Amino acid sequence: MATERITKRAYLNEARQLRRELIELQLQLKQAPFKVLLILAGPEGSGRGELLHTLAEWLDPRGVDTFSFHPPTEEERAHPAPWRFWRDLPAMGRIGLYTGSWYTETLREEARNKRARRHLLEEAERIRRFEKLLGDGGTLIIKVWLHLSRKAQGRRLRTLWADPSTAWRVTEEDWQHHLIYDRLAETARLIRQRTSRHGAPWTTIEAGDERARDLAVARLLVRRFREQQRKATRLSPPKPPTDPKPLRPSGLRRLRALRLDQEMSEHDYTALREKWLGRLSASVRGVLAAGKSVVLVFEGWDAAGKGGAIRRLTSAIDPRDYRVVSVAKPTDEEKHAHYLWRFWREVPRDGRVTVFDRSWYGRVLVERVEGFCRADEWRRAYGEINDFERQLTEHGTVVIKYWLHVSHEVQLSRFQERESTPHKQHKLNDEDWRNRRKRPAYEAAVGDMLALTDTPHAPWQLVPADDKRFARIEVLRTATRLLEAALE
Amino acid sequence: MATERITKRAYLNEARQLRRELIELQLQLKQAPFKVLLILAGPEGSGRGELLHTLAEWLDPRGVDTFSFHPPTEEERAHPAPWRFWRDLPAMGRIGLYTGSWYTETLREEARNKRARRHLLEEAERIRRFEKLLGDGGTLIIKVWLHLSRKAQGRRLRTLWADPSTAWRVTEEDWQHHLIYDRLAETARLIRQRTSRHGAPWTTIEAGDERARDLAVARLLVRRFREQQRKATRLSPPKPPTDPKPLRPSGLRRLRALRLDQEMSEHDYTALREKWLGRLSASVRGVLAAGKSVVLVFEGWDAAGKGGAIRRLTSAIDPRDYRVVSVAKPTDEEKHAHYLWRFWREVPRDGRVTVFDRSWYGRVLVERVEGFCRADEWRRAYGEINDFERQLTEHGTVVIKYWLHVSHEVQLSRFQERESTPHKQHKLNDEDWRNRRKRPAYEAAVGDMLALTDTPHAPWQLVPADDKRFARIEVLRTATRLLEAALE
Repeated sequence: MATERITKRAYLNEARQLRRELIELQLQLKQAPFKVLLILAGPEGSGRGELLHTLAEWLDPRGVDTFSFHPPTEEERAHPAPWRFWRDLPAMGRIGLYTGSWYTETLREEARNKRARRHLLEEAERIRRFEKLLGDGGTLIIKVWLHLSRKAQGRRLRTLWADPSTAWRVTEEDWQHHLIYDRLAETARLIRQRTSRHGAPWTTIEAGDERARDLAVARLLVRRFREQQRKATRLSPPKPPTDPKPLRPSGLRRLRALRLDQEMSEHDYTALREKWLGRLSASVRGVLAAGKSVVLVFEGWDAAGKGGAIRRLTSAIDPRDYRVVSVAKPTDEEKHAHYLWRFWREVPRDGRVTVFDRSWYGRVLVERVEGFCRADEWRRAYGEINDFERQLTEHGTVVIKYWLHVSHEVQLSRFQERESTPHKQHKLNDEDWRNRRKRPAYEAAVGDMLALTDTPHAPWQLVPADDKRFARIEVLRTATRLLEAALE
Repeated sequence: MATERITKRAYLNEARQLRRELIELQLQLKQAPFKVLLILAGPEGSGRGELLHTLAEWLDPRGVDTFSFHPPTEEERAHPAPWRFWRDLPAMGRIGLYTGSWYTETLREEARNKRARRHLLEEAERIRRFEKLLGDGGTLIIKVWLHLSRKAQGRRLRTLWADPSTAWRVTEEDWQHHLIYDRLAETARLIRQRTSRHGAPWTTIEAGDERARDLAVARLLVRRFREQQRKATRLSPPKPPTDPKPLRPSGLRRLRALRLDQEMSEHDYTALREKWLGRLSASVRGVLAAGKSVVLVFEGWDAAGKGGAIRRLTSAIDPRDYRVVSVAKPTDEEKHAHYLWRFWREVPRDGRVTVFDRSWYGRVLVERVEGFCRADEWRRAYGEINDFERQLTEHGTVVIKYWLHVSHEVQLSRFQERESTPHKQHKLNDEDWRNRRKRPAYEAAVGDMLALTDTPHAPWQLVPADDKRFARIEVLRTATRLLEAALE
């Protein structure tokens, strides 16, 4: 690629025009329902820092967040790897400028041998999936590779080095990386190739001439933003679903085959509860002491007894070690973020437990059935959720998922009991009755959830819950078994 | 205190009534503009955990956050001590239940000697001020001391220990604390005495009988909530200020005495800039390498050149080490929180720099002048801000504060230039013109700010900014001097 030279006058002229467009773009972004990530990568001396300063001057800084990269902290290492990246996303309607990103660590590696190369390709695949998830969620991802030849890099480093007033900008690491320029360039080429996809392509920009570089990046930002706007207006709003047909009938069959007539006497319950609470407590402490974390997901019909089961289960855990997250309707901030974002925030650090009273499965249950999201969105969610849970278990988190199943009849009698008990009335609202009327549609959704997200790393536990005592023991027993298995 | 015994029937009767009231209270809380903190403290065996479970059952869990205590993580230790407590506050309209809190560490200490006692009293004073700040901001703080006699504690631990199904609940530490019951009780008494203040008193509740304990805590919650509601309705809304008179004329005199006619040639500027950028870069790296953090605050008149000064200054810092926070109007979430909350979130960890483009001083500038808060609120803010900055410097953070001062005339010519330059028009809005018209009122507020928050640990740097070159060098020079001083 030849270095484009540009005169100062031409630069100032075009910069003036681009600045006006960038400001206009930011104003529109505040109204538009998406966020923008601009990832700047390139070798030392390609001017990521200077570019950041130019963009900070050209953009309205009140709508910009800058993110960069440090080796992960102890807190970040105590969470699954993507946690830190989810934490460092700009809010909706804002632009995030990344001088470091999920690429930084990968780009420092060298593909010296087969094993290192395989590791790099795995990393690239993880990044690809993460960006696809964000892109599908409406985020605009712009990735710039600032190209600087080996020769130009050497020239730039030497110039800075020679001048006492700028010598401080050149670190020892810069020189080291200059020596292995070719190997790092090969890694970068491989990573770019594997992570360039429709929607999040890499754009290479020649960094030899500073003015041309700045203008090219600003032009790219304007162009990609306009494309994204056109795409966003083409998306149709979600339609109320008319067809409750399951995608995979096997899940529904599994649900219907569950024996709901299993009961337990008060006497047996008391004895078994103490037994399992004791074993559960020991296994939780063991798992946490081993530095693992635990995620418990409680899903089930309204009035299936999730709250009671959670209270019994958590009574076996040190209150300092667990946290119950009751998932209500999303707040404004959450509504504007990716649906997985608010759950990533609550992922436990090593040595802790998070209990989710309802969860990310809302996407494929209430949001699917009530038409709160588009069909392509909930259809995509099964795979996204499997990926999410795999990221947890790969980190060493034990993921336990319950579906508490009650019959239509038992649910009715519990609703009636709530209605007639003053201090329980708040537990019952119009939505519960609405959901009850739509049982067939919900059953189809539950069946698909069981069929499509029952993975080896995070299998579903189906709990017959017409009898509360039986259900509670079942919850304690399966949790204990799974935790004991995780300890082996 | 005699242990109150209560029959099961009486318990169930009153519990039913209290649960109804608690649910009603939570509904009202969603509308009411405050948050509730319920702090549960007491010796081992007093049943903090069980009480938590009872309240989790009685309250609607969707409006409750539970917080507990662990020794601080590496991330928490890398921030000033109060950072973790600011992070763990419930959102507005919610109830936070604390089984561990800012008291936990303090309550484990023993006042064995004079020095330990002095340390305890200092801690108590810090807590008192923190709670006063929250209370003044409208937070309802309820603190419960669960009293359990030494004898009752021994009985309870032995009962649990004797039964194989509950023995796991008793840890070795529980027995150790039982042995030094009296000394810990003395510490707790001292701490309670020093942190019981109007608005956040300690209430002692006898924990010997579980039923009586649960009812007493619920009753207390209902009563204090009602009191707080009455208090909130008595508060008058802020009135637009009529009197721009300064509280302390000395600040205004200092502002007016500043020589604004100082200028610098392009030639001198270029030479001095390189010199000071080099020294600044070295001193920043030195300070960060020493594990300290840096906070830079930029305040000044509209169009005083804050943005340009920040860009020059940050060009000397590794982009991975700093973050610029542009303070715009608060978001909904921020509006509902304490005004310092959003700044605590941005406090840098050790080894990092945060640059604030406008800051917490908005409370005593725009909010005071425009009447966005009540007079008692902005008057109180000077002391609160001094406390806040002291908490930063006590941790080892270097706090550098600039006021960029321009004359009324130069401001006008910069406004006019912005108006006539298309890509700068967004920098000027109606509010800027409004603020300009109110210059006398703002000058009074700036003067008071300079007089009342110019502390030895965080002094103000007044920068004459009619000449941009002079101002930028002044900013670089003072930052360097202060950082070099911090290195000594």
